[in-house]
Amino acid sequence: MKKLILTALLIAVFGLTAHAQQALFASQNIKSAEVNKDNTVTFRFIAPNAKKVQIAGDFAPKAENNPIGGMVGTGLIDMKKETDSLWVYTSPKLASELYSYMFVVDGVVTHDPNHPYLFRDFGTVSEYFIVGDTPADMAYNYKVNNVPHGTLSRRWMESKMLNTTRRINVYTPAEYEKNPNKKYPVLYLLHGSGGDEDEWVHFGRTCQIMDNLIAQGKALPMIVVMPNGHPAMEAAPGESSWGLYKPFHSRVYSGDGTFETHFAEIMKWAESEYRIQADKQHRAIAGLSMGGGHTNTISRLYRNTFDYVGLFSAGLIRAGRGKFYDNMDELLQQQIKDGVKLYWVGVGTEDFLYKSVQDHLQLLKKYGQKYTYRESGDGHVWKNWRIYLSEFAPLLFK
Amino acid sequence: MKKLILTALLIAVFGLTAHAQQALFASQNIKSAEVNKDNTVTFRFIAPNAKKVQIAGDFAPKAENNPIGGMVGTGLIDMKKETDSLWVYTSPKLASELYSYMFVVDGVVTHDPNHPYLFRDFGTVSEYFIVGDTPADMAYNYKVNNVPHGTLSRRWMESKMLNTTRRINVYTPAEYEKNPNKKYPVLYLLHGSGGDEDEWVHFGRTCQIMDNLIAQGKALPMIVVMPNGHPAMEAAPGESSWGLYKPFHSRVYSGDGTFETHFAEIMKWAESEYRIQADKQHRAIAGLSMGGGHTNTISRLYRNTFDYVGLFSAGLIRAGRGKFYDNMDELLQQQIKDGVKLYWVGVGTEDFLYKSVQDHLQLLKKYGQKYTYRESGDGHVWKNWRIYLSEFAPLLFK
Repeated sequence: MKKLILTALLIAVFGLTAHAQQALFASQNIKSAEVNKDNTVTFRFIAPNAKKVQIAGDFAPKAENNPIGGMVGTGLIDMKKETDSLWVYTSPKLASELYSYMFVVDGVVTHDPNHPYLFRDFGTVSEYFIVGDTPADMAYNYKVNNVPHGTLSRRWMESKMLNTTRRINVYTPAEYEKNPNKKYPVLYLLHGSGGDEDEWVHFGRTCQIMDNLIAQGKALPMIVVMPNGHPAMEAAPGESSWGLYKPFHSRVYSGDGTFETHFAEIMKWAESEYRIQADKQHRAIAGLSMGGGHTNTISRLYRNTFDYVGLFSAGLIRAGRGKFYDNMDELLQQQIKDGVKLYWVGVGTEDFLYKSVQDHLQLLKKYGQKYTYRESGDGHVWKNWRIYLSEFAPLLFK
Repeated sequence: MKKLILTALLIAVFGLTAHAQQALFASQNIKSAEVNKDNTVTFRFIAPNAKKVQIAGDFAPKAENNPIGGMVGTGLIDMKKETDSLWVYTSPKLASELYSYMFVVDGVVTHDPNHPYLFRDFGTVSEYFIVGDTPADMAYNYKVNNVPHGTLSRRWMESKMLNTTRRINVYTPAEYEKNPNKKYPVLYLLHGSGGDEDEWVHFGRTCQIMDNLIAQGKALPMIVVMPNGHPAMEAAPGESSWGLYKPFHSRVYSGDGTFETHFAEIMKWAESEYRIQADKQHRAIAGLSMGGGHTNTISRLYRNTFDYVGLFSAGLIRAGRGKFYDNMDELLQQQIKDGVKLYWVGVGTEDFLYKSVQDHLQLLKKYGQKYTYRESGDGHVWKNWRIYLSEFAPLLFK
C-alpha cells in the first residue's frame, strides 16, 4: 500500500514510472529488528528455501566455538519458520544497550535487508540496534536525541615523522562555533588494535554520548580528538590510498613506540587547529585495549601533560618489551610524583586482560597513586567501552 | 597462516589469547571482490550448502524483472561452484567505474563477508568497488589518492522556519585551514528523492572527486555544501532522533516548495559559518533528480544569486504543480534576463526523465539561454552523477 501511494506520488510529481524508483527501497514489507515496547526484540527474515535460519548477536548465549567467525563469543539461536517464507525470533527482554547481530542462513552469514544500519569493525560488518528509550536507560545517551549536536570533522593531518598524511576525527561541542573566542578542554580518545580513527565514532557512539552528556549538564563542553593509532595506516580501511583492500591486522599493528612518539605531532596539530586549553589541567587522555596501552605509555612519557587518564580494558605494555618501554616503571613513579588529578581504570570481569589490569592497580597502590576503579561485567567488548566513556567524561575538568 | 602470525604477535605483545581477538577479523581466507590487473573482477563466496549462488551488480546484464528487489535493472549472474564450498565468478573486463553488487544465495540477498565496504542508499545496502588505477581512468578520481585532502564536516544547523535542527555536510578544500583570511566560492550540491545529506558523500564520492580535481589543478578550491533536501527529515536515516527506523520514501518526500523556501536559511547559515565569497559570481548550485528539480526552482526563485547552474538528470517541476510553482515560466525568463554564466544540463539516454530534460532544453532555446549539454549513456543512476560532478566542477568560477 505504501508503495502504491509512493508510486502515485512520484508519478504525480515527477512523472516517474514505478519501475524507475524501485531501486531506492527495500521491497520486503516486514520490520526487523523491531524493538518492542517491553524491550523484547523481534527479528524477521524472508528465506523460503532455507533449511535453517539462525541469529548471532551479543544478546545470544555465549559459546566458545562459533563456526561462523566474525562474531566470536556468541552462540547461534535458531529462528522459527512461521510461514512459507518468514523466519522469526523474538528475544527475551533485553537490558538497555546497543546490540549487534547477523543472520546465518544454512551456515552462510548474511545481513538483514530490512535494517540498513551496519557498523564495520575492522574486517567485520554487523547490524546494530539500540534498546532503551528513556533517560534512565544507559543506552539513551547512545541515541541521537533532540539536543544540540556537536560537529564531527573528518580531518587530515600531515605527519613529518611518518612522512604521510593521516586521517583524524575531531568532535567539537554544539556551542563551539557560537563562541569564537572561547577555548575548550580536550580529550584524546584512542582506539584498540582492531580499530581505527572511525571506531570511537561508530561503535563508540562518541558524538551521541558527548552531545547528550553535555546537554544534560553532566559533562562540560569539550573537544574530543580521535586519531588513528596505527602509525602504518593513513586512515581507516577504505578511506586511504590503500583502496578497498581486505583489512588484516598484522599489516598495521605496531608495538614499538612509534605511535607514542608520533603523538606529539597529533597534540601539536590539534592545538594549532582548534581552540584548545593547552595545559595539563585541561587535557585528558583515554583509550581502550591497545589505546589503553597507548594512554598508559603516553601519559607517562609526556610529563605534566595530562591531569586526566582513562584506562579502558587496557592492553598494558610493561618493561621488557624492547628499548622504548624499558623505563616504564620509573616513568610511572615520575608521573605519580608530578601528579594526576584523575586516574580512572575500568575492566570487565570476564576480560582476558582482567588479571593484567589488577596487577596494574597493585602497582598504582604500591607507588601511592589514588585511582577510580570501575569493574563491569562481560569481557573485552564495546559495551564496556561505551559505558566507561559515559562515566569517565562527566568526571573531567571539574 | 596470517592468523597464526597475528596470534603469535598478539600473544607476544599483549598476552592475548587467540580467542579474544578473533572477533576482529573475518575468518575466510579468500579475496573478494578482487580487481584483477586486466580489469576483470573476481568474486568469491563460501556457501557449502547452497544450491545456487548468484551475483547482482550494475555490471551485470540489464533485466526488467529482478526478483530480489533493491537493485532493479540488473540481472542475476550464476556463480560457479569451484570446490565443495567456494563459488566463483569472474567478470569480463570492466570499464573504469565505481560498481556495486550483492550476492544472492538460493534467492536470499546477502553481502560479501570478505569485502566490508558498503553503501546505504536510502533503505538498500550494497557492496561497492572501484575499477580504474591510472589518472587516465574516469574512476581514478573516485579513489582516495596521495593528494592533499579536504575536510568533511558533519554539521547541524538550526532552522527557524522548520523549527528543528538539521544535519548538513560541508566539504572544505585541503588549503582552507591554511588560509584563515581567504574566502572561497561555494557549490551547493543537492541529492535525489531517495537520498539524504550523506548521499553525495557516499555514492557521489564528492570529497574524493574534489580532492583529486583540485590537486590536479582542474578545479578551483571551493566549498561544497550538501544539505538534506527533505524538509521533513532532521538527518539521514540512523542519524536523527527518529532512531534506527526502516526508511520509506513516502514519509519524507515533499514537493510543495518547502525545501526551496528553506534554502534561504541554508545559504545564510553556510555564509555565516564558512569563509564564502557571497556573490553571484562565486555561487554554484547543482543537483541530481529531485535535487536537479530543486536546483531548477531555487536558481530561478533567488534572483541574481547563482552564476552556475547544474541540472543532473533533473526531475523538473513545471507550472501547474500547485501555487508555489505557478509562475515558473516567468521566473525562467527572468533568470535568463538576469544572466547565468554556465547553464549545464546532463542526462543519460536511457533515463526515464530523458524526454522531460529534452523539453527543458527546448525551453532554454526558446528563451535564448545558452547551455552546455552532456548526454551520457545509461539511465537514472549514480554512475552518471559522479561523471557530471567530475565534469561540472572544473567549469566553475573561471
